[in-house]
Order: sequence, then structure tokens, then C-alpha cells
Amino acid sequence: MKRIDLNCDLGESFGAWRMGDDAALLELVSSANIACGFHAGDPVIMHETVTLAVARGVAIGAHVSLPDLQGFGRREMQLRADEVHAMTLYQIGALAAFCRAAGTRLAHVKPHGALYNMAARERTLADAIARAVHAFDPRLALFGLAGSALIDAGTALGLAVVAEAFADRRYLIDGSLRPRGDAGAVIGDAGAATAQALAIVGDGKVIAAHGETVKVQADTLCLHGDGVHAVQLARELRAALEQAGVRIVAPGAA
Amino acid sequence: MKRIDLNCDLGESFGAWRMGDDAALLELVSSANIACGFHAGDPVIMHETVTLAVARGVAIGAHVSLPDLQGFGRREMQLRADEVHAMTLYQIGALAAFCRAAGTRLAHVKPHGALYNMAARERTLADAIARAVHAFDPRLALFGLAGSALIDAGTALGLAVVAEAFADRRYLIDGSLRPRGDAGAVIGDAGAATAQALAIVGDGKVIAAHGETVKVQADTLCLHGDGVHAVQLARELRAALEQAGVRIVAPGAA
Amino acid sequence: MKRIDLNCDLGESFGAWRMGDDAALLELVSSANIACGFHAGDPVIMHETVTLAVARGVAIGAHVSLPDLQGFGRREMQLRADEVHAMTLYQIGALAAFCRAAGTRLAHVKPHGALYNMAARERTLADAIARAVHAFDPRLALFGLAGSALIDAGTALGLAVVAEAFADRRYLIDGSLRPRGDAGAVIGDAGAATAQALAIVGDGKVIAAHGETVKVQADTLCLHGDGVHAVQLARELRAALEQAGVRIVAPGAA
Amino acid sequence: MKRIDLNCDLGESFGAWRMGDDAALLELVSSANIACGFHAGDPVIMHETVTLAVARGVAIGAHVSLPDLQGFGRREMQLRADEVHAMTLYQIGALAAFCRAAGTRLAHVKPHGALYNMAARERTLADAIARAVHAFDPRLALFGLAGSALIDAGTALGLAVVAEAFADRRYLIDGSLRPRGDAGAVIGDAGAATAQALAIVGDGKVIAAHGETVKVQADTLCLHGDGVHAVQLARELRAALEQAGVRIVAPGAA
Repeated sequence: MKRIDLNCDLGESFGAWRMGDDAALLELVSSANIACGFHAGDPVIMHETVTLAVARGVAIGAHVSLPDLQGFGRREMQLRADEVHAMTLYQIGALAAFCRAAGTRLAHVKPHGALYNMAARERTLADAIARAVHAFDPRLALFGLAGSALIDAGTALGLAVVAEAFADRRYLIDGSLRPRGDAGAVIGDAGAATAQALAIVGDGKVIAAHGETVKVQADTLCLHGDGVHAVQLARELRAALEQAGVRIVAPGAA
Repeated sequence: MKRIDLNCDLGESFGAWRMGDDAALLELVSSANIACGFHAGDPVIMHETVTLAVARGVAIGAHVSLPDLQGFGRREMQLRADEVHAMTLYQIGALAAFCRAAGTRLAHVKPHGALYNMAARERTLADAIARAVHAFDPRLALFGLAGSALIDAGTALGLAVVAEAFADRRYLIDGSLRPRGDAGAVIGDAGAATAQALAIVGDGKVIAAHGETVKVQADTLCLHGDGVHAVQLARELRAALEQAGVRIVAPGAA
Repeated sequence: MKRIDLNCDLGESFGAWRMGDDAALLELVSSANIACGFHAGDPVIMHETVTLAVARGVAIGAHVSLPDLQGFGRREMQLRADEVHAMTLYQIGALAAFCRAAGTRLAHVKPHGALYNMAARERTLADAIARAVHAFDPRLALFGLAGSALIDAGTALGLAVVAEAFADRRYLIDGSLRPRGDAGAVIGDAGAATAQALAIVGDGKVIAAHGETVKVQADTLCLHGDGVHAVQLARELRAALEQAGVRIVAPGAA
Repeated sequence: MKRIDLNCDLGESFGAWRMGDDAALLELVSSANIACGFHAGDPVIMHETVTLAVARGVAIGAHVSLPDLQGFGRREMQLRADEVHAMTLYQIGALAAFCRAAGTRLAHVKPHGALYNMAARERTLADAIARAVHAFDPRLALFGLAGSALIDAGTALGLAVVAEAFADRRYLIDGSLRPRGDAGAVIGDAGAATAQALAIVGDGKVIAAHGETVKVQADTLCLHGDGVHAVQLARELRAALEQAGVRIVAPGAA
């Protein structure tokens, strides 16, 4: 029986500002990437989100980011590898403290936004992140774009790597994602996104931007929580996967 | 044989700005309170400071603070107890991650600046801090002003509490510290500070502002790292204690 | 013909986080208090909000705050008067730059949240704010709680002071506001809030918490933008005032 | 009689952290670039630094930066042009408020660190900065690297541009600066730096890294305030220029 993890970014409120429908998404995913205060989240929100995730039995990951609240971690910054290493360790530790207080274990680490993209293409930064993950706890899983430098870096250190694919993003022929700014980068249609999810999980491939078939081996699919129809799309996608006999389960789970 | 812990605030640089002579102070103390990024410190500096402390065999504590870099954590803020609880957990976790990566354990937690003062007098905040410490690791020691609400809160939870006294601060008759703003609040003379240290460690008492004898039971003395003569004063104080046959050792150590 | 200013807090989004229905509120008020980046707002949002306000012909004020994004400027902080003075000047200047670029003038300054409350009761802080306003531009109006230390401080410096009252907050017998935390502090019923607005504008008085009549002389009424029914309440209130023959106009306007 | 402006970065302390010997440098320069709170400086320090500069008769400029205190504005960030425009306007306004309160006018704007480098090579960002300067006050001078995109952008808008050269940085054959990371990028020897200053001011040329003569037309020379010998080097350089009959004077001065 096929299995796949569904992950989603959560805990992205900050102070008085709300973002996302965390409670609804926690019903649909098997892994939650929780913001650690660098692009979103604050200690109170991290505490609440971890508590919610534990209550729903969802595996918890640290969604580590560049230090940029104003830019929501989406603006690339030129950081040295030692800076990336230290800030990754800091954020993992901060989120893990809430897990520990809640009687659970941190399960994975996933870089957010610009850091995700930088770690996908720059091996030096990818290594800095992977080393921080390994130094904190070698049992942690490392989430990264399928085929990326981050997956390579995690593999080299012996970490459990979790390759991520996207149901609602258009792929290029080399297996990379069509840049978000480009027209047609995001698949808005629920049916098309669901079809892509089924193709990835079932056959390990997607139809790329110009109709070519591209191999995409994925252990987890990323569901988006923002946008008006996000929760509805996530719900349909999960239902379609289950109907196709796919088991939705976190990476490390039995 | 008498024993006492000597503690000092460390890792209080931030980004490009330097503060304190950490390397010199690490030669003199048995416990280091390391800033966690809220009043000072950043991930790179936390990593460096933990590495230094481990190399010197000094016990490491999280110097948790109000979120106020600009005010160096010295400006009181009206926070709810759940905010204090969550931000304490966050900072403990962040610093503990660097300890874990360095192969050591976090030994204690000490609130910094305004949070230290607030936790000394407000039991609700003291409880919030103590609960965060206990939730992270019940083996952690909690440092607080001797006779304060924080010591009471830690005791109530069964934590190992470490009562702190000051060699270079003048005491009031009720055992509290003369406010920093008052004239004569700080004992600038090295001889007088050393004498006070010996009186605290040897007899559990100090001569208060108006000549009265006040009981001060202390498990640790705080050495200050700022000021031109800080390191020299710390050196003399340690020498005097050792000459008096006092063993300088971290609270939990054998 | 009676006249009153209606003011509202605007530009309180931050980065990727949205707050309030600024466009709707700008149709209803004569003065906009725009966040300056310390409790909310960032340069891009300030630019957008000033542009919107100019387009609607609404007078623009700097909504100066304590430096606390996470607490939305609602947590009191113990700042020295020189700190309050400098941070007020900083924020006024920052917002005024966007006015200048948009070809308009900054019209007023209103402290936000905890700073508003502190400046209402502590004359030293009130003076620090009033001096900053005066130093930047003595033609600026200073908004403060009717009867507060801030109004006194502005008056003493010869500033045009604008006394503020609240349609939807319950008053105590001494003319102060019932603390927000208390039950019954906020008047949720639109009819009751409108009645209070008419009593303030028409007769200069309100019915206090225990039925007493209290004098409240107001030059401006504060409309709230948060809460589900906020815009609807603001709309009804404005309509009721206009129907009663009250002219809605900014303080300095002809 | 030849004339040149000498400029220096000032006000780069932050909160409890000190940096640079501002008082000494203000004796030597004709223009001060004052940090605006984004890479360094806070409202209190901006107030103090402006007061000091006014007392010494030194022209004041806004040293606008990327929002990165931890990285001291030295880490490049991918910002959109509208973000750069808005944050430039914000910082100019904030600093200008202190000038206004001190009874003086802001004289110039100079981007700091990574923003300086980005604006030197990317015309879109350079235009965003130049437009912000022009929108605030078309009489402001814009400082930028001689021959850079920023100088072009300012010129295109009709701003008074001030081309900057460096006495203590090695040039490449195309007139750009040898990257800071490279060996030999900084001229540590006071005699060599002074010689380069005289060559720039006297002949409009420098000897580049490999011995070639390169044209460098400069209106201002940048003196560095950091480093142990910085003030001494600045003093020698100023003395050498005066001895050579060069008048040290701010760009706009009579």
C-alpha cells in the first residue's frame, strides 16, 4: 500500500496578527511545520500551535527561517554558513522546548521560504542546516525539495531525508519549480492539483510546464494554508489520495 | 569546607557590537549566565559563548530576558504570565540547543535585568518562570535573589533553587537590594566588596546601608563583567575567597 | 452648528499580516492615526496608507507607540522621559516623510495603546511627548484623552490640543475610562454607543457606569476598526451624528 | 583652491552597546552619515549624535540601511524597489526630525553597507533610493560611489550628487573597489592611504591593484571610524590634505 506524508506550514500568526486556519489544516495533515519566531510565530503562538498539533496527533517540525519578520522570511539574505548553522540550531531548540513541555518529540526540520530555496541550490548552506539538525538530534528528519542540495546534504550526514513535492506548483523540465513570480507557476484549479498529487504519489512523475513528463519522487506533499480556497483544496486532495488507496502518514510513523 | 558558586553574565555582545571580557571572566566563575537573544546575544554569539564555557568547564545557564534589545532587558514591561512562561521556555530551548550540540547539558536558568527584579517581587511571574524551567527539565537549577518570590516559586515546584547574593551591592534592612539608582547602591571599593563577600559566605550576613546586620543566605555570588575594573575586582574576590578556604564550585557539582 | 472630528487607527497591518478595513474606515472618519512601525505598520504599509488617506481627504496623524510589535504596543514599558521624547520624534519624522512625499502635511500626533494610557496619567511622559511634537512642528495638533495629563502638557506648550472621547467605552465617575479588562468596559450595542456619542457631542456629558452623569468635553471621537461589526458601528454612528446636524470635520479644518 | 568633503559614519552605537569614537571623528570631518535605526542607532543615539554634529558645525546626512541590526546592514537582502523606496523615505524622515528639532537641515543621504553596494550596481534600486531622496527634499545631496548606478540615478533626477572615493581601499582597473574579502583590499598603511587621498583630490586618479592608473573623480572621501588606528589615520589624512592646500568643506557649503 502506497503511503505519503502531507505537510503544512502552521503557527504563522504573530502577536495580534492572525494568519491561516490552523485548526482546520491540522485535521488534514500528518506533519506540521511550525514557525519559530524568525519569519512568523512568537513564543505564545508556538506554545498554542504545538499544543494543538499534539492534540491532533500530528508530527511536529521546526519551520526554520531567515530572520525577517517584515519580509515573512521570503527575501533572500546573504548569510555566512556559520550564521545559518547557528540560527538553525537556535530555532530548532526553541521549538523543541515547547514539544518537550508538551511531552512529545520534535520530529523534523524544514527550512522556510527564501531559506528553503537557498538551501535547495547552495550546498554550503544546505550543509550548514543539515549539520545543525544532526547536532541537535540525529534522529530528526530533514524536509527539503525533492532532488535538492538540501536532500543531498542530509543524506551525506545520514539523516532521514524527506523529499517534498507540490501538488499545486508547476514543475520545469529539470525537476525544479517554476518561479513563483511567473504566470502559471501556481496551479489554481483543484482538479488539476489533485491530479498532479496522484501522479506524484502513484507514478513518481508530473507533467511539466511544456507537457514533458518529469520524474518527481516524493515522500511528502506540501499543502498550502493561505488563500481563500486553501483548506477546501487540501480537503479534496486528501480525500482523493485516500480514495486512491494511499495512506496519509508522517514519515517516521509505523 | 565552605563552598560557593560564582556566577557572571556572559555572551552579551550582539551582532557587530562587543560587550564584556568573556574570556577573562570564564577563568574566574563556576557558572555562566548566557544571553539568549532577547536582551543581548545572537545565535552566532550564543554558539561561541557556549563553546568557550564548555572549554573552561564552567556550568552553563540560560539568562532569560524580556524581549528588549534596545533597552538591554532593563526596562520593565507588563507581560501576562502566559507570555512570560512561553518566552522563558523559548529562550531556555534556544540556549539548550547549543549546549546539546556542544555535548553538554544546560545547568541552570537565571532571569536577567528587569525580569529578575519583577520575578523577585511578583509571585505570579515567578511561578510562570519556574513552571517553564520545570517543564523543560526538572533537573535544572533556578537562580534568583535570596529571599525572593522566585526562590519561593522554584521551591514550591521542587526545583533546585540557588539563592544569589551580591558582593558589590548595598543591602537594605529587609534583605532587598538598595535600588541601583540610589547613591551608594553599588560598592565600588574592591576591599569593601570582598569583605562583604566573605561575610556572606562565612557568616550568612551583611552590614546593611545604615549599619544593621542583615541575614543573607547565599548559594552563589554574582560577579559583574561590565565596568573598567570588573575583571580585576572579580579576580581579587575569587582570590580572597580561596584564601579563606572557600571552594568555588557550581551548584550541582560534586 | 456643532462640529466633531471622528478619528480611527489605520495602517495597522505589518509585512504579510493584514489588519483592519482601512479603505472602509477612511470613508467614515475625518482624521486617521497611522501606525509608524513601532507597534504596527512598516514603511511600505505607511506609504500605502498615507496615499489612501490623501486620496480621501482625511487628515493624517502619527500614531506613535512604544517599541513592541509583538505586544502591538499594548504592554506598558518603563521608559525614561528622554527615551519617550526621542522615539516620539523618530516616529513623527518617519510618518511625516510619507506625507511630504505625498504633497500633504502631517496634521496631528496621537499616542497609541499603552503609551496613550501612560501619557494620560504621567505628566513627565506627557511632557516628553508634547515637547517632541512641538519641536517637530508647533502647528501639529496633539490628540489625548479628554482631561488627561497629555492634554495638560500640550496646553502648557501652546499646542492645539484635541480632547478625545469614546462612544463605545464606559466611563467612570471621575471621567476616566473603565479599564478594558473589566466586564462592561466596552459598549457592544450600536444603539447605546450612538446614544453616548450624541450625548458627548450634544451635551458634553455621558452616563457613567453606575448611572451618574459625568462631564466629557470632546473634540474628537475615536472609532474602532477591529472587531467584526466595527465598520458597521462606525457607519451608524456617523449617520446618527449627521442626522443630528453635527458636522464631521478634522480639528484644524475651516 | 581645491576642495574636498570628508565624510564619516557616525551614531553607530545601539542601546547599551557603544561603537566608534564619534566625538573625535566629528573634529575631523565636514559631513557625518548618521545611522537611522535600521543597521545601528536608536532614537536616543540619533538625538545625541545630531546634537553633537550640530555643535561641531558638521553637515548631517541620513545613513540609510537595509533593516538588519544583527548583520549591521552588511548582508545583502533581496528587496523589491518599492520596499527600498519606502524604507529610504522612512529613515530620511526619522533622522530629519532630529535635525529639525535641533534647528538645522538634513544635508545629504548616503546608503550604508550592503545597500550602498547594491545601489552602486543595480539601477532599479538606485532609482528607488534617488526617488525617495527627491520626494523628501530635492535640495538633498545624494552620496554614492564615484561612477556608480546611484550617482547616475541621482543625476537623472536632478539631485546634487556627491561622488565618493576611498583613501584606504584598493581600486580595480574598472574603477570599482576591490572586494572587502580579498587580500589587499584595505590599505592599512597610513602613508599609502594619505598618498592615495592626495592623488584622488589632486589629480583625480589612483594607482590600481596591478599598478595601472585609474581615473577616480571624487567630491568626498570616506574616513573610517572603526579599527584601532582609525582616528589617528583620519587625523593624518586631514592634516596632509590641509598641508597640500586643500580646503575641507561639506558639498553644499559656500
